[in-house]
Amino acid sequence: MINYPFQKNDKLNKNINYKNKGMFLEEVINNTNEYYKDRNIALIYKKPTPIQIVKLSYDKKYIEKAFFKEKSTTDYNGIYKGKYIDFEAKECTSKTSFPLKNIKEYQFKHLLKVDEFGGIGFIIFYFSKLDKFYILFIQEIKEYIDLNPTKSSIPLDYFLKKNHEIILNLNFSIDYLKEIDKIIH
Amino acid sequence: MINYPFQKNDKLNKNINYKNKGMFLEEVINNTNEYYKDRNIALIYKKPTPIQIVKLSYDKKYIEKAFFKEKSTTDYNGIYKGKYIDFEAKECTSKTSFPLKNIKEYQFKHLLKVDEFGGIGFIIFYFSKLDKFYILFIQEIKEYIDLNPTKSSIPLDYFLKKNHEIILNLNFSIDYLKEIDKIIH
Repeated sequence: MINYPFQKNDKLNKNINYKNKGMFLEEVINNTNEYYKDRNIALIYKKPTPIQIVKLSYDKKYIEKAFFKEKSTTDYNGIYKGKYIDFEAKECTSKTSFPLKNIKEYQFKHLLKVDEFGGIGFIIFYFSKLDKFYILFIQEIKEYIDLNPTKSSIPLDYFLKKNHEIILNLNFSIDYLKEIDKIIH
Repeated sequence: MINYPFQKNDKLNKNINYKNKGMFLEEVINNTNEYYKDRNIALIYKKPTPIQIVKLSYDKKYIEKAFFKEKSTTDYNGIYKGKYIDFEAKECTSKTSFPLKNIKEYQFKHLLKVDEFGGIGFIIFYFSKLDKFYILFIQEIKEYIDLNPTKSSIPLDYFLKKNHEIILNLNFSIDYLKEIDKIIH
């Protein structure tokens, strides 16, 4: 039994806020999903962040106090060419490797389940200092960890070897479905 | 071009609150989805209600004011037997018909898109006064409206004719995937 090097799940992570959530990556993926939707290519949405409501207004029409909660799944899911698509987007500032502690254990497990059920599960990685975007499918991530159980990060070389780079377009979108095409054809 | 009798989309519906959201139906579906997940049958989740944050605390760790927003899609989606599943759950108090104004136009359109993309889109209807649960697939709903463009509700007879009743189990779950099995086999 491998002790996966992911971040353990927290019930309520009070450090979630907008500042450290990688808004650029999120914007790029939202742009891309809108592009896909407008052109009838795919229906993929970001799930809203769940909140824990502490207090509602007296008329229950608005929230007076709430905390951000952690999701039990991933950020994005939807449908493309009849296939169920499910992914997470992750950013790192390292130029040489992606730290596995940036991935939550429940996200990894959820994506493995998606794969097991016949869906397509993956992570989009954004190396912000390199301005590079890569995909790894969940089985590729698992393969790396299973073969390198003592490593706490995935080296850039592994991303290059797996060869799913996605290019940032001028309209700030990334055509990540072209990598999905490679595995469903 | 048929003028569909659904409720028009609101940008921000301030009347959404917990009281009028049919908590019983939601609980039953959540129970069912947990049952499916625990037994490795399907991965189906309720999407959190999106909120519009008006004010965060000074440390950005919690929300001091926010409104509920309307979703642009449906309440539930996930994967079953490799298929993308997407549905909405609706309750009504009438004993004889389901008022179409209870369905939002964007929900109807989203489910038609899901169908078009090769997913399975449907609505689970709960007639609370009859204690009965029925499914209609989105094409069945469209068929009724297309054939009855002047009607503002779907009569109970139509639900009986389509024959997708789901029985409430003793553990407060409804095995709705058995109706999905009928169309994917």
